[in-house]
Amino acid sequence: MDAKRETFETRLKSGAAEIEALLEHLLSPSVLSDEIARPELLRSAMHYAVLNGGKRLRPFLVVESAALLGGNRQAALRVGAALECIHCYSLVHDDLPAMDDDDLRRGKPTVHIKFDEATAILAGDSLLTYAFDVIAAPETDLPDRAKTELVLALARAAGLGGMAGGQALDLAAEKQTPDEAGIIRLQAMKTGALIRFACEAGAIISGASSDDRQRLRRFGEKIGLAFQLADDILDLTSDTATMGKATGKDAARGKGTLVALHGMEWAERQLRQHVEDAENLLSTYGERAAILSATAHFVAERKS
Amino acid sequence: MDAKRETFETRLKSGAAEIEALLEHLLSPSVLSDEIARPELLRSAMHYAVLNGGKRLRPFLVVESAALLGGNRQAALRVGAALECIHCYSLVHDDLPAMDDDDLRRGKPTVHIKFDEATAILAGDSLLTYAFDVIAAPETDLPDRAKTELVLALARAAGLGGMAGGQALDLAAEKQTPDEAGIIRLQAMKTGALIRFACEAGAIISGASSDDRQRLRRFGEKIGLAFQLADDILDLTSDTATMGKATGKDAARGKGTLVALHGMEWAERQLRQHVEDAENLLSTYGERAAILSATAHFVAERKS
Repeated sequence: MDAKRETFETRLKSGAAEIEALLEHLLSPSVLSDEIARPELLRSAMHYAVLNGGKRLRPFLVVESAALLGGNRQAALRVGAALECIHCYSLVHDDLPAMDDDDLRRGKPTVHIKFDEATAILAGDSLLTYAFDVIAAPETDLPDRAKTELVLALARAAGLGGMAGGQALDLAAEKQTPDEAGIIRLQAMKTGALIRFACEAGAIISGASSDDRQRLRRFGEKIGLAFQLADDILDLTSDTATMGKATGKDAARGKGTLVALHGMEWAERQLRQHVEDAENLLSTYGERAAILSATAHFVAERKS
Repeated sequence: MDAKRETFETRLKSGAAEIEALLEHLLSPSVLSDEIARPELLRSAMHYAVLNGGKRLRPFLVVESAALLGGNRQAALRVGAALECIHCYSLVHDDLPAMDDDDLRRGKPTVHIKFDEATAILAGDSLLTYAFDVIAAPETDLPDRAKTELVLALARAAGLGGMAGGQALDLAAEKQTPDEAGIIRLQAMKTGALIRFACEAGAIISGASSDDRQRLRRFGEKIGLAFQLADDILDLTSDTATMGKATGKDAARGKGTLVALHGMEWAERQLRQHVEDAENLLSTYGERAAILSATAHFVAERKS
């Protein structure tokens, strides 16, 4: 591991620890003003769903994008925590029997297995709701204008026209494989939208110019594309190792990916291109953007 | 029907028509800026869930509370529509097999029957998310300060410490009947919190003084108590008519209500008291509050 990469990974880990301490605080049993009571079973299911050993990539992108543009770090951490609540709610609902029906996540029982299905549905609902609470709360030290923009951008990224819509398209894709445009749209919604929001949020938090905001948004798009392509490649290469064939798993699933359409060589070239595009978008910031550049590499080169 | 009541019911109906026209618009196929695409199946499930013939009591309370305090009517309609999205999402999720497992609502197939379970889960998630979109959107003509307060109050009313937490308590109550304090807490969360929010929202929209806001909030609490008590009484009296016994259904369900605890006579006296308390809170506004007073009577005296 080279020194630059070590620096990045240390920073990613310490960022994750900071976000987790905040999430612990936000999901503690203490009742906030304007809450009537926190039913313990539901609260502990939310806590279990969130404190799950994730890499916290999305909050990291919020915090580092805000750092680049001079945004308030404490506010960025809170917005990152809110975003992580949304990401974790989506995992809880995606794992449900009626959706992907997964019993395990990161080697631990999923929420509906550990608790029950009703509790998993409500824990997801409550995490989704709580994200907006955390952004709007007085403890998030931002102008109301920024809060309104964050709420709107997050709702668009997470809802019908973003992540939730992408999951609907993903379920439909199991019955009928989408064409290339359909795959690109599905991925932009299901995983791309939240990652794009993470980077754009840094700009909103910083009260950045619309040029900076647009740049960070496009950077987030590129990271999202790289993230998804790396996922699809990992899916195939781990398949190659375990099953001795390259495209069997996806073909069997009938689930289209760009790698399946264009082959591994194309995919690796494309992945390098996304990282280069992402880096080029940051060139105007020079050395200050080193951590975000390293994040683009990390997303593309991660092994899990 | 006396003239006053007729006036009220005409106004409730025309208010419902106005809210439904807005909901139609908000849930149309057209894609908003910052949305990537609106998958048609998911959009139509959301539309089906919302355009369901409801009385639109909650939006009516938002609009009439704002009218009392001089708030912007178009903004109040949008906040009312957002609140109705939350109410309708909760019905979709509550009806799921893992929750109350209902196949029919208002005589029509529930969303998971009409579509499928995965689509119902995602439609609920998307409606919940969309509520915050509608409040924060530029089309909602309110200061950012008011939007932030609305987002926070709605998230608290709907989440872990409000409606969703109340549904968790309700599921737990089927296994173990709560004591009186537990019943009161459950009802304040499950149905009370959104109704309280509806009235408080009118004050926030109007930029009202904290005295007015506190008064509307307490009025909302009283309406919520009356709403729930009327529900419990209706549950028993319709039971009496159909099954020839007074307390059988609730006792069989093992589900505690205040009517079951204290009897029908107490409940009817208590209901009148809630309406009187609600009216007293409005006395300072005189004749201007006639519609809200009539709403308190309507909530207590409705037959369905």
